[in-house]
Amino acid sequence: MSFIATPQMMSFSEPLLLSSGEKLDHYRLTYETYGKLNAAKDNAVLICHALNASHHVAGVYPDKEDSVGWWDTMIGPGRPVDTNQFFVIGINNLGSCFGSTGPMDINPITQNIWGADFPVVTVEDWVHSQEKLVNALGINRLAAVMGGSLGGMQALSWAMEFPEKVAHSVVIASAPNLNAENIAFNEVARRAIVNDPEFHGGHFYEHKVIPQRGLKIARMVGHITYLSDDVMNSKFGRTLKNEKIQFSTQNVEFQIESYLRYQGEKFSEYFDANTYLLITRALDYFDPAKDYENNLTRALEKTKANFLVISFKTDWRFSPARSREIVKALIENKRGVTYAEIDAPHGHDAFLLEDDRYTSLVRAYFKNISKKIDSTVSE
Amino acid sequence: MSFIATPQMMSFSEPLLLSSGEKLDHYRLTYETYGKLNAAKDNAVLICHALNASHHVAGVYPDKEDSVGWWDTMIGPGRPVDTNQFFVIGINNLGSCFGSTGPMDINPITQNIWGADFPVVTVEDWVHSQEKLVNALGINRLAAVMGGSLGGMQALSWAMEFPEKVAHSVVIASAPNLNAENIAFNEVARRAIVNDPEFHGGHFYEHKVIPQRGLKIARMVGHITYLSDDVMNSKFGRTLKNEKIQFSTQNVEFQIESYLRYQGEKFSEYFDANTYLLITRALDYFDPAKDYENNLTRALEKTKANFLVISFKTDWRFSPARSREIVKALIENKRGVTYAEIDAPHGHDAFLLEDDRYTSLVRAYFKNISKKIDSTVSE
Repeated sequence: MSFIATPQMMSFSEPLLLSSGEKLDHYRLTYETYGKLNAAKDNAVLICHALNASHHVAGVYPDKEDSVGWWDTMIGPGRPVDTNQFFVIGINNLGSCFGSTGPMDINPITQNIWGADFPVVTVEDWVHSQEKLVNALGINRLAAVMGGSLGGMQALSWAMEFPEKVAHSVVIASAPNLNAENIAFNEVARRAIVNDPEFHGGHFYEHKVIPQRGLKIARMVGHITYLSDDVMNSKFGRTLKNEKIQFSTQNVEFQIESYLRYQGEKFSEYFDANTYLLITRALDYFDPAKDYENNLTRALEKTKANFLVISFKTDWRFSPARSREIVKALIENKRGVTYAEIDAPHGHDAFLLEDDRYTSLVRAYFKNISKKIDSTVSE
Repeated sequence: MSFIATPQMMSFSEPLLLSSGEKLDHYRLTYETYGKLNAAKDNAVLICHALNASHHVAGVYPDKEDSVGWWDTMIGPGRPVDTNQFFVIGINNLGSCFGSTGPMDINPITQNIWGADFPVVTVEDWVHSQEKLVNALGINRLAAVMGGSLGGMQALSWAMEFPEKVAHSVVIASAPNLNAENIAFNEVARRAIVNDPEFHGGHFYEHKVIPQRGLKIARMVGHITYLSDDVMNSKFGRTLKNEKIQFSTQNVEFQIESYLRYQGEKFSEYFDANTYLLITRALDYFDPAKDYENNLTRALEKTKANFLVISFKTDWRFSPARSREIVKALIENKRGVTYAEIDAPHGHDAFLLEDDRYTSLVRAYFKNISKKIDSTVSE
């Protein structure tokens, strides 16, 4: 059993200017913290979430089964990111459906649910809003910002947007931008949602329906890309659901179909369709090199953090080659960077799973950080 | 300009027993032929089609723009499969929507459109029906059966189902069965179609609607898997449709989105939804080794043909590793087999495209076949 986690909220009334030019006059961020902020306030670690996760990074909620945080294997007392040493902050992104201001909230101007009118947010917008919260917690400089996948993009962005405020940036299973194939998969997911007649142009809340069909397809497509070909073959292969083929085009024949349908079903029951659109778009848009003639080295020139970059060999969604682009650009800027390619079989999902080679590396890296923190505190 | 092609039809009233145990009492097959059958009737080449193609393999229809056959670059006078030498037969599969008996036809028993009640057909069923047609054309033995992707599965199946009737089997960009990931992509496509409210359980014809939304998604998913990551990056990359980002989750932002939507739209206007379900299921089911304890070598023991097997390095849907499984099993059976892995950048689509290394090989292979035919004729 893990420790008890308690979600908290913080409201902001200073307007947040977004990349799109729009602004959010008021917003709230939901977050959780684990461990204690030290006197020097230099032991804080911010965890950024990926597509479908939230602020609930570690621990459990009382009396709620299956409520363990999404990165509980990585973060907690005695874990690789040790909450006996670090004050860890899990934060829910703007536009999400898990507590921070998002499409399911009331638009204060129209007094209707935002729905599809919620402003489009970018990775940089998230980072800017996260900085307000970090600031309000009295933290001037984070010991580390850490995330996997889209969370890794935020960790990278923090080092660019607030170079003075990040000591270490931990970028896992990520990329400096999405390639065409990834955008293509996101677009299939979005079209499945938008074309669902129950999407109602993104204002389905008023009709008291949910575009569940679209969400299911979106999640099924996503799931395929999170797993490696090999893991899918070893987990499911061509195993049939029944003893024999049923000769049916509409019923489940293979175990892999059953698995995907189940994942789609589950997802469609808890995830907001507009949030899915917003978050996949933030993924598509992220491209810090674009303002530097696509020169990532120049884009990363302003960073001051040290970096830990990790990729997984079987991850075809965010392949090692993409992580190496980041590493190369950092080295060209003479930044401190540790890079590892973990030979895990699980594809993109590997960043969420326990693998000793992976977790030991993170543990060692954070142990090094904590040594410097201790010495800072004792000064 | 290519030559003029003329579709023909042949009706069969001897019942066809299907793998499912069902039977088709009457059916018709649509086909085209190019070139002339020689006196010895040993220069016939059967071309089997893949997912969305048809009997219209080569040539054009008079007064119809864009009506060039889907493998016109490969088949025709002076082409790699030279119709000055060979009598080439293009055939449309049962269950298709392009002329052979399929879900859009009237079920003679109920007098209603078959729709989703059309019997599920397998690769072996197709091969059995094709043999009836080949037989009716007076051909005892095919000089070659040839196909790419699902068509390659049929070419392989012919060599097993009718070992005496196939001199050469040409299996391109294919596999001895689909892996879990391929089944998964097919299932996403099928669910998108079946969950479309306008699918009406597969009886949408009566409602005078078409599940276009589902078909679009199905085609978009398919298209992603036909292209290699590299080709998608070089063709589309992160190029925007407009000069600047529009900050929209529902409108097209990137060229790749525009391309996929266009492909989906076009496809949804001409392809039948029930055919899509049937054909993807035939792909899923094909697995000749399954009756031999998954031992492909034993499954291929009964073949007598010589084989040309070709794969493409960037094809991640039917990877070279899968073709090598076929080659290994053939070699273990001491069958004549020529194998080539073409370093084409285009992914699975490469089998439809012109590449000198690829077409020269096919040309040389068929030149060798034609030499033997000539000598047979002169005997």
